[in-house]
Amino acid sequence: MILKRWLVGDPLKTTQAAGQRLSKTLALAIFSSNNISSVAYATEEILLVLVLAGTAALTLSIPVSLAILFLVLVLTISYRQIIYEYPEGGGAYAVAKANLGEIPALTAAGALMISYIVTVAVSVAAGIAAITSAIPSLFVHREALGLVAIIFMVIMNLRGVRESGQFFAVPTYFAIAALILLVAVGVIRSLYDLKPIPMTMPLGSPIGGLEPLTLFLVLRAFAVGCSAVTGMEVISNGVTAFRHPESKNAATTMIWMSVILGSLFIGISWMAYHYGIVPKADETVVSQLARLTFGSGAIYYAVQIGTMLLLILAANSAFAGFPQLSSILARDGFMPHQMATFGDRLVFSNGIIILGFLAGLLLVIFQGDTHALIPLYAIGVFISFTLSQTGMVKRWLVKQGPHWRKKLIVNGIGAVTTGVATTIIASTKFTEGAWIVFLLVAILILMFQGIRSHYRAVSEQITLDRRGSRPPLPRRNVVIIPVSGVNRAVIRALDYARSRPGEIRAVYVDLDPEESAKVKIQWAQWGGGVNLIALPSPYRSVLGSLLEYVEEILEKDPNTWVTVVIPEILPARWWQNILHNQRALMLKGALLFKERVILMDVPFHLTR
Amino acid sequence: MILKRWLVGDPLKTTQAAGQRLSKTLALAIFSSNNISSVAYATEEILLVLVLAGTAALTLSIPVSLAILFLVLVLTISYRQIIYEYPEGGGAYAVAKANLGEIPALTAAGALMISYIVTVAVSVAAGIAAITSAIPSLFVHREALGLVAIIFMVIMNLRGVRESGQFFAVPTYFAIAALILLVAVGVIRSLYDLKPIPMTMPLGSPIGGLEPLTLFLVLRAFAVGCSAVTGMEVISNGVTAFRHPESKNAATTMIWMSVILGSLFIGISWMAYHYGIVPKADETVVSQLARLTFGSGAIYYAVQIGTMLLLILAANSAFAGFPQLSSILARDGFMPHQMATFGDRLVFSNGIIILGFLAGLLLVIFQGDTHALIPLYAIGVFISFTLSQTGMVKRWLVKQGPHWRKKLIVNGIGAVTTGVATTIIASTKFTEGAWIVFLLVAILILMFQGIRSHYRAVSEQITLDRRGSRPPLPRRNVVIIPVSGVNRAVIRALDYARSRPGEIRAVYVDLDPEESAKVKIQWAQWGGGVNLIALPSPYRSVLGSLLEYVEEILEKDPNTWVTVVIPEILPARWWQNILHNQRALMLKGALLFKERVILMDVPFHLTR
Repeated sequence: MILKRWLVGDPLKTTQAAGQRLSKTLALAIFSSNNISSVAYATEEILLVLVLAGTAALTLSIPVSLAILFLVLVLTISYRQIIYEYPEGGGAYAVAKANLGEIPALTAAGALMISYIVTVAVSVAAGIAAITSAIPSLFVHREALGLVAIIFMVIMNLRGVRESGQFFAVPTYFAIAALILLVAVGVIRSLYDLKPIPMTMPLGSPIGGLEPLTLFLVLRAFAVGCSAVTGMEVISNGVTAFRHPESKNAATTMIWMSVILGSLFIGISWMAYHYGIVPKADETVVSQLARLTFGSGAIYYAVQIGTMLLLILAANSAFAGFPQLSSILARDGFMPHQMATFGDRLVFSNGIIILGFLAGLLLVIFQGDTHALIPLYAIGVFISFTLSQTGMVKRWLVKQGPHWRKKLIVNGIGAVTTGVATTIIASTKFTEGAWIVFLLVAILILMFQGIRSHYRAVSEQITLDRRGSRPPLPRRNVVIIPVSGVNRAVIRALDYARSRPGEIRAVYVDLDPEESAKVKIQWAQWGGGVNLIALPSPYRSVLGSLLEYVEEILEKDPNTWVTVVIPEILPARWWQNILHNQRALMLKGALLFKERVILMDVPFHLTR
Repeated sequence: MILKRWLVGDPLKTTQAAGQRLSKTLALAIFSSNNISSVAYATEEILLVLVLAGTAALTLSIPVSLAILFLVLVLTISYRQIIYEYPEGGGAYAVAKANLGEIPALTAAGALMISYIVTVAVSVAAGIAAITSAIPSLFVHREALGLVAIIFMVIMNLRGVRESGQFFAVPTYFAIAALILLVAVGVIRSLYDLKPIPMTMPLGSPIGGLEPLTLFLVLRAFAVGCSAVTGMEVISNGVTAFRHPESKNAATTMIWMSVILGSLFIGISWMAYHYGIVPKADETVVSQLARLTFGSGAIYYAVQIGTMLLLILAANSAFAGFPQLSSILARDGFMPHQMATFGDRLVFSNGIIILGFLAGLLLVIFQGDTHALIPLYAIGVFISFTLSQTGMVKRWLVKQGPHWRKKLIVNGIGAVTTGVATTIIASTKFTEGAWIVFLLVAILILMFQGIRSHYRAVSEQITLDRRGSRPPLPRRNVVIIPVSGVNRAVIRALDYARSRPGEIRAVYVDLDPEESAKVKIQWAQWGGGVNLIALPSPYRSVLGSLLEYVEEILEKDPNTWVTVVIPEILPARWWQNILHNQRALMLKGALLFKERVILMDVPFHLTR
């Protein structure tokens, strides 16, 4: 308990909840890192595909990057409309649920859940890659480092939203500043040089293609490049976390975020093109660019550390989104009720722990490799984008209202653009992992529906009939105390039973006449007048005789409960349990599912 | 339950126990297989050591075998004296306990336990080797086959002693007959031929030695050959299982066993010498001999199947000895009490299951290789032999009685002989696994003593003081029902609590004023007049508020119990538990260790 308090801090009162709201600068730090950090790997992913057609094909990175910049623009305008229309937050699930119905809503929820988990794994893997680019000797430890980072985040997030926000604001802005410096200096230098200088690089020698340069290859490059726009939806999910006026503040923050993302992404793509960067297995593209721009000195390390921090914070943003989505689903009955429960520190503790666990699992399965996780990432995100934009289109058609045609066109363009992108990603990356996402979404939908139908069945079974009378219930209650010998533990259970008036019977299974006689004599002294019944045991089975006796009482009088009070020894050390209470455990196992039998342990606490 | 009955049969009454006693022929089948089956590997183990000095050294197998035959003679005479002196059985542990004190007794017990486990593993591994010699394609599946054999034996032994005895008598005698036929035909043929014919064999060509032929090598051959006499003590442990007169019947059976063992062992060693057999990795020596004697026809397969059956039965004999030893130790307080409990079918179910599990584990760790397990086997057995003979020496010195000097000399020779053999095995095989046995015996002794001292401490704590008065115990009992809403499950718990008179309070944690008002209205209708107390919850923690309330009652009145009646939903399917009762679980965890708090669940059974 002390450890928990030290790790997660003191509990907060409900009245403190309003004070947990975020300012725009703090919200940008928390909500934008997911999105902006994508620049650390998006350009590299594009180059990794194009280089398959040889280094000459790398020049195509510029048109591909411009296509993705167009996506950023479309999504920014579309999501601003969503923020104003749904100030209560909820994102793709809420929009799809309100406008498209249950199956699309659950599809969006499933896709979002998966992409939150993948966000953590991808961002941590990429963050560790930023560090191993700078310190190659850490490369072999990347999995362990990733797991440590995830555990650290789980603990931080159990401490609560605002504190982790403040904790992370300084590094976020430091990282954004470092990346802006890199792009600014790099782009200015390239403009001053006027022409590309590929030959200054060690790896700049042209490589022949392994595959022909086809339209399909370019589309694959576009598909993986789409990972740049992941995280565009985070702000729309978290509008309620903003200070008043929530929607306006959120929409403004959205613009800031998109401008930073767009400039950094196109800047890095331009620099990579200009310097003729070829992706390497053991050093990231951003690290190569930083080395070329600043050499291997202090500024280079600042860029790498900044990139790493930003990616860790991106992973952290999922720790805000995932539990929130789970709790919304839990309130609708699609997830276990306990996911809806606030933890001590006004955060959704269960969701945080589950997210950390699954992301860690994914990281281990994919051995800390960003590249392998990207197809899973992009497809989940784009499914939810498309559903959310389509939901808005449906909304304007039904609701109309002021300027609805203009709004319809904006979200219509959004829906078409993201739908086309989803199709491209799904068709080019299906065999490389996108199929897993489709399968998992289907499984999640079935799980959501299964949970809700179970809760509905339970509700029907336990709801009291308002007009009908209460069902007839047993009025009698026979208390039975199984006795194996006369000792303090048994006498304690007896005294407990005697603290309420009623019918009490001590029962003893007769295995050995000599032992039985001894027990009877002792009972006369200590039994306090309670009747001791000796049960015969032809089969030498204590359990069997007790069960038979209980059955007999239940059958003889259908109007009685049987309460079995079990004297139990509670050892001072946990491992000593193997030396005690085995028979009590078997008795409980055998009686657990009997309708009118209630079990209770009266523990006797040992001190040594 | 039906499955259990079908697998282990109907329970037996205690009065049937006398009828479970064994006739001599049945006892020989059960108790001798461990001992006699050793001929399947003992000669081979000797040859495997001698061949290290080249095929010429193999002729030394005859003097080594004769030395072991002398051991058989000494042990037979010595153990007959033990059988008459200790008709109640118990073997090395009982003898050492009565005559040498606690530490030697526990050493013997530990060594015996280990050798029971190794017996199962070695015998099963050797039995499977007999089969894979005949059908080489099964060689890769030897581990899986061994595990299946162990599971089969566990089930058989859970069915009870006599039934498994009858089940196994036919194959035992079949196996003994097949081996006697092999040895008789082989020895007669070798006498008719008059001189060895090593050159008729495919592998008879002389091999140079890898090591020089030293005395140490011969002693190593003797050490592994000692595995031939393992199982000599089994009859002395099980005297009580014989029909009246127990000791006389057991002593006669002992003679039969030793004669069969001695003739088969020396016969096989002679044949191996005569035919110049060289051990092979994929075919046992017995299999080679059977092929040379009978060709690869039906009789060869009969010998292999017989050998396999005998070894499986040897493993089975440990299933009689191990649980019996455990139960004797449990009665003395050195093992958990539940090991002393008879199962439904008058056998010691716990011991059988534990033995099967540990032997299976050993088989998997040593990858089903007999050879690697032999050092562990021999050392454990010989430690217990030596302690048991030494105990008898001490007994005659103290007790004396008729013919005590003669008896002293017999057991004295036994003690010296087994002591020397133990020293040889320990010194030649220490690094090859014998050290594990010494370490495990030490650990087991500590465990035995730890368990006893715990039980003694418990006994002191729970024993009632005969002259003193009973400790003052709370007389009041406040029943609390935590209510999260008004439904059938809660009302069932309430009605249960109301079936006994006394103080009942329903408590409700106030999280949301609107919800609270609804609960209060419903309670007025359904609450049956029981007071509903609304607890404030500044920290939004239901658990925290409930705990605080319970603490308050306990502090205010040190003379009261608090009974917490928890309405619990019992789902129709086990996995649905994850959707329910999470809060009840946390409540129980938090209250479990409070002195005067008693918890009980009132389950509401869902039907779908």
